[in-house]
Amino acid sequence: MANQLKKEAVISGAGLVGSLWAIMLARRGYEVRVYERRPDFRNTGFAGGRSINLALSDRGWKALERAGVDELIREKAISMAGRMIHSQEGAQSFQPYGQEGQAIYSVSRSGLNLALVEAASAYPGVTFHFEHKCQGYQTEKGEVRFLHEASQKRIIERPALLFAADGAFSAVRAALTKQTRFNYSQQYLDYGYKELSIPPAPGGGHRLEPNALHIWPRGNFMLIALPNADGSFTCTLFLPFEGPVSFEGLTTDDLVMRFFRRHFPDALALMPELIQDFNGNPTASLVTVRCSPWHFRNQVLLMGDAAHAIVPFYGQGMNAGFEDCTLLDDLANKYQEDWGRIMPEFNRTRIADGNAIADLALRNFVEMRDLVADPKFQLRKEMEAWLAERYPKEFLPLYSMVSFSHIPYSRALAEGKAQDQLFESLLSIDQVQANWRTNPEVVRRFGAWVKGRG
Amino acid sequence: MANQLKKEAVISGAGLVGSLWAIMLARRGYEVRVYERRPDFRNTGFAGGRSINLALSDRGWKALERAGVDELIREKAISMAGRMIHSQEGAQSFQPYGQEGQAIYSVSRSGLNLALVEAASAYPGVTFHFEHKCQGYQTEKGEVRFLHEASQKRIIERPALLFAADGAFSAVRAALTKQTRFNYSQQYLDYGYKELSIPPAPGGGHRLEPNALHIWPRGNFMLIALPNADGSFTCTLFLPFEGPVSFEGLTTDDLVMRFFRRHFPDALALMPELIQDFNGNPTASLVTVRCSPWHFRNQVLLMGDAAHAIVPFYGQGMNAGFEDCTLLDDLANKYQEDWGRIMPEFNRTRIADGNAIADLALRNFVEMRDLVADPKFQLRKEMEAWLAERYPKEFLPLYSMVSFSHIPYSRALAEGKAQDQLFESLLSIDQVQANWRTNPEVVRRFGAWVKGRG
Repeated sequence: MANQLKKEAVISGAGLVGSLWAIMLARRGYEVRVYERRPDFRNTGFAGGRSINLALSDRGWKALERAGVDELIREKAISMAGRMIHSQEGAQSFQPYGQEGQAIYSVSRSGLNLALVEAASAYPGVTFHFEHKCQGYQTEKGEVRFLHEASQKRIIERPALLFAADGAFSAVRAALTKQTRFNYSQQYLDYGYKELSIPPAPGGGHRLEPNALHIWPRGNFMLIALPNADGSFTCTLFLPFEGPVSFEGLTTDDLVMRFFRRHFPDALALMPELIQDFNGNPTASLVTVRCSPWHFRNQVLLMGDAAHAIVPFYGQGMNAGFEDCTLLDDLANKYQEDWGRIMPEFNRTRIADGNAIADLALRNFVEMRDLVADPKFQLRKEMEAWLAERYPKEFLPLYSMVSFSHIPYSRALAEGKAQDQLFESLLSIDQVQANWRTNPEVVRRFGAWVKGRG
Repeated sequence: MANQLKKEAVISGAGLVGSLWAIMLARRGYEVRVYERRPDFRNTGFAGGRSINLALSDRGWKALERAGVDELIREKAISMAGRMIHSQEGAQSFQPYGQEGQAIYSVSRSGLNLALVEAASAYPGVTFHFEHKCQGYQTEKGEVRFLHEASQKRIIERPALLFAADGAFSAVRAALTKQTRFNYSQQYLDYGYKELSIPPAPGGGHRLEPNALHIWPRGNFMLIALPNADGSFTCTLFLPFEGPVSFEGLTTDDLVMRFFRRHFPDALALMPELIQDFNGNPTASLVTVRCSPWHFRNQVLLMGDAAHAIVPFYGQGMNAGFEDCTLLDDLANKYQEDWGRIMPEFNRTRIADGNAIADLALRNFVEMRDLVADPKFQLRKEMEAWLAERYPKEFLPLYSMVSFSHIPYSRALAEGKAQDQLFESLLSIDQVQANWRTNPEVVRRFGAWVKGRG
């Protein structure tokens, strides 16, 4: 591949990862054809209603910087320095995500995608082909077909390089799934989600603290809200599909109103369009996709959700996909664009990280909907912050490793498990709740734990 | 469904489970159309070379009895009362599977399938349509299509009842996999297998003990052999695809011969056609398929490998599929053939058993290729048999629960894990190896374990 005459590639999918990767390839001088099922975002706007807002964190920013588009995005992003927990009674308490100055950033999926497509289009070598539905990959011929549905015209590509960034339900991956020794799993949660909204205040401002991710944790379900630049919030209700308290049970407007009045009264007061939103927006499902290998014959590579679709509870789906781009770009430097070496190494090193962030995202659902309301959990968070500030070399909390570092997810998960053991020990100290800042046993056990980790 | 005018059903797949289930439905007065991709076994014989011999055990026999075809099969089955372990040096040692008189039975897949198709054909309501390839299921229309490849004629069925017994790579299941909230996983072992053979002795007899399943355990790989009625043995080599000792490394006839000479010298002496077999037979892969739900709208039901494909190491793949038939037949009695109640209940109760036997089969690979050669494992087997004989009410070894009982697989797996703890305790008793039959501590700990289990 290193000595191929023409540097060209096909990307299936002009979503966040596909369009960002087009930029990175274009910067290397590749001619890139990007095919996308949906209509051109630049003309028609974006079909919404099924996607929670996105939270950009350090891994995402790094990739955007690499592609030279971070400044564009930063203008519209809203920092969220922590979680704002809403109790049943409407009391609010703030839990910072990290140190002073650290934050994750709320961005709109449509705005970000549009900016990336526009930035990619600025490269003369990049062409976008919208309204072209991928009809799968023919492994024997190395052929990928795209159908322009309006004209029924078919484009057949036989690319030397095909990057499949076509999402959780990837058509390219579906073809690979039929290959022997392709490991694949799709696992749905028994929870659905529905997008709702809090409109701007009459004057145009935000009706809740804008610089926070709002959570109404209610045990086995929850409501969250992320700020938008126009003063509104995008809310998402996560609720079991079936069971005593579930979407299945919310069959009338009256039942929906009673449900919100009972569990989210303070949010309800800010949601004049609740019933309209609830009835108009679909109830979507939550899937985790894992597979292996991520490449086929050094010609096809799965990226982003096509390789590792995860649930949204760590805010890392997009960040993980963007980090795929950064890491591939690193490998392209390391191996002088020899894809016969890049693809196997990416496959060998990155799948463990995809699995780790999938696990972390599932864990975080329990944390968000339940634990954040637990005094013991809040105590742990305070102790984490205290330790991180006093012993920055020895201790970085799991959340910070995931959101504010570039430590591989698999290492973060392993460290996180070790931290669980540390806090099980610390929180079992007698009277620790009252005196942890001064109890020498806390520092002694922490010291022993650090030493034990070598 | 209970009051539908005509009792009819479509079965996709005339393999072991599909043809047995056709018999059970026919006995209930159903008109059954069975579609099968392969040519009619009754005319053309059976394409072999990719299937190890099958081991029928109690669950399988029970289903065959229910269908009234057990006598037919029993005539050709060869009992295997235990494992014959072959050491590197050619020494043989016998490990019984259960009590005196208990055995699993070697049967040929082709003979059994043929007998079942013939028995089903004897019912006037059953028709077989061979050389019809299932082209998937259309969930919206409830339509299943079969293509007769030679004539290119297509049959479209819209059955009220579709039973998908179309195997590990089920076309019907592939359609359900695209449904939201359909959980699915396919996981391949890094091992392949290749069928080989030991021909009959010159006089026509068996060259090895016929009433045993022969194993050459070699740590991370193994050879096995099952007796056939004609005096031959069907052998299967299980070996990693890649690595220091692997199929990848056996690239020449000379390397194959050296490999067998080194690891299986006594078997090699009985395999005059080794090289021909090795080069002529494919290297097949080993997949575990799990999914949920197993039914769709009370119209489609996945059965056998289509619902729960497992690796062959517990000899339970066919037995589990046959047990599906028995259990469905029980439910058909319980609910007067109301499939709207049968399918959900089968789905709710049986999936845990499918997952359990999948786990047990994976565990047993380690047992067969490695543990059987371990003196500690042999000691455990002896103690198991001793306890089972002395305390038949309190103790049934895991292998017996799986092979010689009808205890649900999920309960067998849970009991098996409890037994692991028992033997961890018993085998840690000082000097137990020498004196276990008389050491009172053995009986004391066993008594405490029984008591603890309630």
